[in-house]
Amino acid sequence: MFLTVMTVAEALGALAPARRSAVVKVAPALGAVPARDVGAQETLPGWARATVDGYAVRAADTYAASETLPAFLELTGAVAMGSAPAGEVGPGAAMTIPTGGLLPHGADAVVMVEHTTEPMPGHVELLRGVAPGDGVLTPGEEARPGDVLVPAGRPLRAADLGLLAAAGVTEIDAHARPRVGIVSTGDEVVPGATPVLEPGQVRDACAPALAGLVREAGGAPVLRGIVGDDAAALERVLAAAVAQDDMVVVSAGSSVGARDLTATVAARLGDVVCHGLAVRPGKPTLLADCGGVPLVGLPGNPRSALVVFRLVGLPLVRAVAGITAPPPAPGVPARLGRDVPSAAGRLDVVQAALADGVATPLFGSSALLGPMVRADGWFCVAEADTGLGAGTEVDVTLY
Amino acid sequence: MFLTVMTVAEALGALAPARRSAVVKVAPALGAVPARDVGAQETLPGWARATVDGYAVRAADTYAASETLPAFLELTGAVAMGSAPAGEVGPGAAMTIPTGGLLPHGADAVVMVEHTTEPMPGHVELLRGVAPGDGVLTPGEEARPGDVLVPAGRPLRAADLGLLAAAGVTEIDAHARPRVGIVSTGDEVVPGATPVLEPGQVRDACAPALAGLVREAGGAPVLRGIVGDDAAALERVLAAAVAQDDMVVVSAGSSVGARDLTATVAARLGDVVCHGLAVRPGKPTLLADCGGVPLVGLPGNPRSALVVFRLVGLPLVRAVAGITAPPPAPGVPARLGRDVPSAAGRLDVVQAALADGVATPLFGSSALLGPMVRADGWFCVAEADTGLGAGTEVDVTLY
Repeated sequence: MFLTVMTVAEALGALAPARRSAVVKVAPALGAVPARDVGAQETLPGWARATVDGYAVRAADTYAASETLPAFLELTGAVAMGSAPAGEVGPGAAMTIPTGGLLPHGADAVVMVEHTTEPMPGHVELLRGVAPGDGVLTPGEEARPGDVLVPAGRPLRAADLGLLAAAGVTEIDAHARPRVGIVSTGDEVVPGATPVLEPGQVRDACAPALAGLVREAGGAPVLRGIVGDDAAALERVLAAAVAQDDMVVVSAGSSVGARDLTATVAARLGDVVCHGLAVRPGKPTLLADCGGVPLVGLPGNPRSALVVFRLVGLPLVRAVAGITAPPPAPGVPARLGRDVPSAAGRLDVVQAALADGVATPLFGSSALLGPMVRADGWFCVAEADTGLGAGTEVDVTLY
Repeated sequence: MFLTVMTVAEALGALAPARRSAVVKVAPALGAVPARDVGAQETLPGWARATVDGYAVRAADTYAASETLPAFLELTGAVAMGSAPAGEVGPGAAMTIPTGGLLPHGADAVVMVEHTTEPMPGHVELLRGVAPGDGVLTPGEEARPGDVLVPAGRPLRAADLGLLAAAGVTEIDAHARPRVGIVSTGDEVVPGATPVLEPGQVRDACAPALAGLVREAGGAPVLRGIVGDDAAALERVLAAAVAQDDMVVVSAGSSVGARDLTATVAARLGDVVCHGLAVRPGKPTLLADCGGVPLVGLPGNPRSALVVFRLVGLPLVRAVAGITAPPPAPGVPARLGRDVPSAAGRLDVVQAALADGVATPLFGSSALLGPMVRADGWFCVAEADTGLGAGTEVDVTLY
């Protein structure tokens, strides 16, 4: 029944898609994935600017200044924001300058206003000396032409957007959000909007949940509807998905018959690289390479499907999206509130509620979504372990 | 100059907005914030279903079954997926049933196919006994009418979307994404799309970066453009923002003059509750309550502005969005690679690069965004500390 049971690491090694989503020109946006390093085109800042409110001076005029023996300079002007200073700072002179103001010619430092007094109009007393460059941002201190502003493969963060805007970068080469086709199968499955169920019917829980996970990973879900347990219909829908999408996911129906159907059709459309994952819940998982498009056949139980898609699907979506530096997963160490049994050779994924540093495992049939909804996070019992005792420290990955 | 210097905790206590964004009816979507607990309308599952592939039986018929002495039952039919079983399971009888199949009348358990053989057509041998309920999901095991499916105030996760779909919930009462007005000020500030800067000009880095942070927190940024250092113009723009948005953010220009302007206008539009934050970088921060709309005046240096908005702005956006269970921030403990100086009474926010468990602080003028772009995360030196020595363990919050 399970041809090739693999660990998660083996499965991700076997199905390492070379294909990436298309590279498109986009305005920088949160989460966009640069397809190559984005370089600076200009010197940033282009001119020396004050980093404090104060007085633009020649540092040499201030060396001996102190509280007891202030330096006394003549005020010869004021720098306005956003324009070139009128005039320059000569020996023995100073100009008022706001933070961000352009350093006038002649000046090489800015004395903070907090270290000055204006004892009489037209003059300023400096209570401290400054060295050349103090209180000044020098040209190129943020970036020089050709410097990497933001790296390829890391989804853009808020600060990246700021730096790109500062540098005048209005367009980057980025990977398009990968289209991830989502196909639900099973004669028993009806759309979520079905108001009243006939006996034996279930609403499609997998498709909207998988769409959420795809979005979480930076992909664009393409909902391809529900297909009954019919090989020809499934092949038609999957072939269209493989032709049009960057990745395809099938929630494979819960019965052995439905799973066999997915396996049969997947084998017709590509190479099955894994049929059976050493994960609980989630063993009946199928991975295939359909001409470069990864196809993931998930277990029929919704919770199993979501566990497997988090372990295997999210890394695949990110790989296809060109993400080489995935965002970190929030985690927290906790002590186990009770024993957790497991079998060797299998990764157990356990839902857990957290309180006061204690992780309480939430059990229940893998047909139930409730334990996952009520969980704060999840932890793994590694392949080598045969269970974990109460009190063991586990790393809980938070939802 | 700074009227009321507060810690971050004091500031968040002083500006605790009662206002929430509007409650609207929406289809469940990733990140949507339920305004109230979403309850189940029906029993889920509505019928007893098999959780394994196997045989529907009366448990009483299987009690003594073992490998050496199998129970021998007559096969009287097969349950098909998605429809009510034809017939019922009488004493000494069994029906084949797929995972998810509806349990036929008469049966009270399902024996896994792995624990059976079919020695001759029309009959099945059970190699193990089962108890009533084994291999069966009972009606209401997922939810009963009135049970809370997903709680108010927690942004919807992927599994929540699955459970709501399973329960036929196609619409929920959710908080609208709060509109966060973003106003940039300063005579020196020009739009990011400006190809060539005049001397003294800088492109608006704050607005796109703040928009990114607002989105990260679940808000909808409303870019209200750049206003010069002109009190009347600023008051006009801020008054419109306060009237139309759920929250307003001003990147206040970097000069003391620009900051004074924001303070003056904010005092006309509402009550200034904090003017000066004990944070470095980020001291020149202003918080005001404008008739229930929180107004945040940020420092002019982009990095300072982003540090403060992360500390103070994100919690405010989440509060207005009705989020009572914010998503966890990813963090990791690390050892400091070098000494970090700090002054008592002030929270220092330090950008850090991480490698091999060592956090290397990235310093530089707070006018530079680069250290934040190059950082993997950030850590704090608490108000009470006067610096941290190399080797100290710090908690790095990851971007």
